Amino acid sequence: MNKIIAEVSIIPLGLGTSLSSLVAEGVKVLKECGLKYQLTSMGTIIEGSWGEVMDTIQKMHEKMFESGALRVSTSLKIDDRRDGREVSMERKVIAVEEKLS
Amino acid sequence: MNKIIAEVSIIPLGLGTSLSSLVAEGVKVLKECGLKYQLTSMGTIIEGSWGEVMDTIQKMHEKMFESGALRVSTSLKIDDRRDGREVSMERKVIAVEEKLS
Amino acid sequence: MNKIIAEVSIIPLGLGTSLSSLVAEGVKVLKECGLKYQLTSMGTIIEGSWGEVMDTIQKMHEKMFESGALRVSTSLKIDDRRDGREVSMERKVIAVEEKLS
Amino acid sequence: MNKIIAEVSIIPLGLGTSLSSLVAEGVKVLKECGLKYQLTSMGTIIEGSWGEVMDTIQKMHEKMFESGALRVSTSLKIDDRRDGREVSMERKVIAVEEKLS
Repeated sequence: MNKIIAEVSIIPLGLGTSLSSLVAEGVKVLKECGLKYQLTSMGTIIEGSWGEVMDTIQKMHEKMFESGALRVSTSLKIDDRRDGREVSMERKVIAVEEKLS
Repeated sequence: MNKIIAEVSIIPLGLGTSLSSLVAEGVKVLKECGLKYQLTSMGTIIEGSWGEVMDTIQKMHEKMFESGALRVSTSLKIDDRRDGREVSMERKVIAVEEKLS
Repeated sequence: MNKIIAEVSIIPLGLGTSLSSLVAEGVKVLKECGLKYQLTSMGTIIEGSWGEVMDTIQKMHEKMFESGALRVSTSLKIDDRRDGREVSMERKVIAVEEKLS
Repeated sequence: MNKIIAEVSIIPLGLGTSLSSLVAEGVKVLKECGLKYQLTSMGTIIEGSWGEVMDTIQKMHEKMFESGALRVSTSLKIDDRRDGREVSMERKVIAVEEKLS
């Protein structure tokens, strides 16, 4: 199974400017889905197969409407590497940090 | 069926800096999928249900590997509006242009 | 002077789900700045030098606060090509379409 | 001085698929600029004024050409909040995590 790393940012519109409660609703859905993830200040990074990641993101996106949003803007960036290198979110950061020290 | 508008940008890595042939391969896949789309200089805008759009994008993304890419960076932005307004890529642009004239 | 092509998408938060009036305010600012641009259903594509494009985007972004937004999410993608090929938003689309016909 | 949080992802084209050395070159430039930042597996988050952040990103982007790239795709997302809430990358994550526990 090929693994991708994706970062998703979900912006619900029409519910004001304080979004942390809604982001938390999305993260609860993500936790239930069981994929490895990392929460950052600008998005959520998720690791898994294409199908697993996309199913998870669709559920997080739908959760915003269930929570009252009338319009949702979801951005997604996928890194899919198949050149034989082992792929993980930790390894990508370590590879850069090794070159810095 | 709820309709979304998505913009996708697919960057194959490891195949040089001239990407128009590869972009054209992706657009051929898109044409076969049958969804409404618009090609711009910075991406491709696609209209359809979540499932239709995501299936199409996955096929376009896979096409890059079939064409020789070893790593692919795919960015995606989804606008999903459910406030009763009719949604289409033309209508969004017209709504802005009406306010400009 | 090196020319870049950039796509910008500006989402004002806290002002509801109908954003076309605000987008139009941003486009008015863009028109005054004088750069070549194309309005699409998912963003605005702008052509110019790094400084020209960034100044224009900052003004469009600030306009959202002047129009009442309390939080603004601005996304930007820059394509900067220096391999000797002539760069323009029309040329990028034509290069793909030639390969399709 | 108003502070923004930005996430930047810089993809150099034409230099293969292993980008960690080039990313490290960009991070060295970022360190010299002196802004607060966080490296993630999908980008770099930077905190500062609009001018500080944009100057830093321009220098990181230019570094890719100095390192041999012939084309660079730079993506940027800015969160600019002016509703009176204190803004920082740590605070945004904490606000979500508090709602999860």
